[in-house]
Amino acid sequence: MDAKEEANYGHAAGNEITCTAAVAWGPGQAFSIQQIRVLPPQKLEVRIKILLTSICHTDLSAWQGQNESQRMYPRILGHEASGVVESVGEGVEDIEEGDHVLTIFNGECGECTYCKSKTTNLCAKFRVDPLRSLMRNDGKTRFLTQDGKPIYHFLNTSTFSEYTVMDSACVVKINPKAPLNTMTLLSCCLSTGFGSVVNTANIHQGSTVAVFGLGAVGLAVILGAKARGASTIIGIDINDDKRIKGETLGMTHFINPRDLKTSLNEKIRAMTKGGVDFSFECAGNLDVLREAFLSTHDGWGLTVLLGIHSTPRMLPLHPMELFDGRTITGSVFGGLKGKTQLPLLVNQFMNMEGLKLEEFITHELPFNKIDQAFELLIHGKSLRCLLHL
Amino acid sequence: MDAKEEANYGHAAGNEITCTAAVAWGPGQAFSIQQIRVLPPQKLEVRIKILLTSICHTDLSAWQGQNESQRMYPRILGHEASGVVESVGEGVEDIEEGDHVLTIFNGECGECTYCKSKTTNLCAKFRVDPLRSLMRNDGKTRFLTQDGKPIYHFLNTSTFSEYTVMDSACVVKINPKAPLNTMTLLSCCLSTGFGSVVNTANIHQGSTVAVFGLGAVGLAVILGAKARGASTIIGIDINDDKRIKGETLGMTHFINPRDLKTSLNEKIRAMTKGGVDFSFECAGNLDVLREAFLSTHDGWGLTVLLGIHSTPRMLPLHPMELFDGRTITGSVFGGLKGKTQLPLLVNQFMNMEGLKLEEFITHELPFNKIDQAFELLIHGKSLRCLLHL
Repeated sequence: MDAKEEANYGHAAGNEITCTAAVAWGPGQAFSIQQIRVLPPQKLEVRIKILLTSICHTDLSAWQGQNESQRMYPRILGHEASGVVESVGEGVEDIEEGDHVLTIFNGECGECTYCKSKTTNLCAKFRVDPLRSLMRNDGKTRFLTQDGKPIYHFLNTSTFSEYTVMDSACVVKINPKAPLNTMTLLSCCLSTGFGSVVNTANIHQGSTVAVFGLGAVGLAVILGAKARGASTIIGIDINDDKRIKGETLGMTHFINPRDLKTSLNEKIRAMTKGGVDFSFECAGNLDVLREAFLSTHDGWGLTVLLGIHSTPRMLPLHPMELFDGRTITGSVFGGLKGKTQLPLLVNQFMNMEGLKLEEFITHELPFNKIDQAFELLIHGKSLRCLLHL
Repeated sequence: MDAKEEANYGHAAGNEITCTAAVAWGPGQAFSIQQIRVLPPQKLEVRIKILLTSICHTDLSAWQGQNESQRMYPRILGHEASGVVESVGEGVEDIEEGDHVLTIFNGECGECTYCKSKTTNLCAKFRVDPLRSLMRNDGKTRFLTQDGKPIYHFLNTSTFSEYTVMDSACVVKINPKAPLNTMTLLSCCLSTGFGSVVNTANIHQGSTVAVFGLGAVGLAVILGAKARGASTIIGIDINDDKRIKGETLGMTHFINPRDLKTSLNEKIRAMTKGGVDFSFECAGNLDVLREAFLSTHDGWGLTVLLGIHSTPRMLPLHPMELFDGRTITGSVFGGLKGKTQLPLLVNQFMNMEGLKLEEFITHELPFNKIDQAFELLIHGKSLRCLLHL
């Protein structure tokens, strides 16, 4: 960057920063813990000192390069994180240096047709786009290798770095008194699961609920169902070890489908006088999705799709089955508008008793042990492993 | 029927009636206009003198025996009708001799879990079941041939007869001042289309709407969209002749997909800044259904399925497409609870100006010309042909 270019950053607090990041150089390759250069934030951008980041399956599949079109390297992955604002670019008015913030992959510009509609949390500019890897302002990256080559961005966030630059539409200022370790999870899994219950499905007291797949998102669904006063919360997983965690968070019944002689939906309908009011698919498996759909009560059952289905297979539902009064819908980031609703949810969580958010954090490691954290996730040993930067 | 059996009917007004009916004796065979015996109504049953009946595609497919499991003969088809109550069975309290009534194929017992729920119009006992052909009370028919052989019932109704016997849960008493010719259509197509707009989709003033397939149900959707103050109502049909009828009822734009160089959904999204708020599939075609789904605005678009899809093909939607915030749902009988809501809808229609319900009745014929009425429907020449009994 020459002097003239630097002058253009005017409003930004500083110049480029050199720091440590975990860079992905190829599908499934061990992360390179290396020094990188992080440029100052441009117009409406924010530079954040990341304090904590965790890992979810979306990072895993991007790291593995499961989808060929996602293979852009070198890249800084990571999207579930919290930190402190280091500096802000021109025009950023709602965030300032020193603010505690969460990163969100599903942004909220506040100005597009979608952001102005009450019915969606998608944003025309900053919705989830795993293929986007450059900043909107100039189509360039804010990350450079030591010798000046670009390093790509990921999911509007790129949190596997001591410093990151993000569009302010994807940065949420939260209560500075909020405990960052657990609140970090609101950056993705907690908001996705909890929000899908209280927002997308909007379940009511006394509802019956079935949750398919007890990873962090599924467990966050249980948390939401309990908070709303669901009378029955059935957790389903092929791993018996999930039972204890689920019960701790409020699950009332557990089913391991491998123990069943009947189909899963027959079992659940028999347990609940015809089916649950709401089912949540958090497994990313279409056969499970069909069971989740049929496990709801006809007439009013709602199935919420949360799992990622990276298969060419279409929905395994027959059109006439919609006439039985069952509905299916998808939920991205729990249907929450991040900038507007997340600060409120943080405050709500700070005041709720018995939430047990710490149950989600099964491991904590220093940032340079990121490969170990990925191993834990791959082998199903961790729910969330917090990396300390 | 011997004397002892007759005595069991106690409360019924009369004995059996001999009258004329159009009996289906086999798939696609010309109707036999013949004398039949109609037994008195039993407990919670009603015997109706049918005055007007029309024909819809459900009658057509049952007559043609498209679905092998539906082939039960001899059978009295017909489900869209109005008439006058001739007598009632024991325990019927809301209906009496002389009442003007509509027949409904999707009944409302008022007592089951479904009827007590505000969220569905399915009824545990009297929901649509094309396979049921006997009365619930005793598993027998109320129709006999002259020599005493049973004639099967159809869709809780069987209106192709001068007299029919139905469960009172499927008989709706309406305002005696209501004009029966047009109100007959509330027995099926008008309720289905209009109800799907004001009830299932619950569209709001200023909504944008696309209607795929401009038969009687599609046109009733236009009627509902206009009544709710939709700003844009796009009708789609491969038959250009539908344009005039659609425009008369409130359609603002017409598309014949055969005239397009782009896909239908691209065309509609270009016309409506990203897609319509609501789309209604009334064609019974899965490729059309996919276009209807993609024609809605992402983030909040709702597609309502009204067409009958008698194909083994599954929904042509990918699970990840649900994350774009589009939803799909089915609507049976416009989501209306027949006994509760239809009398109110009749009164509402009587007081609405400029409804033009008469536009739906393109033909009127005497009952014995029923074969001719089927021909008109098969060749797409009639919307509704009223048969006078």
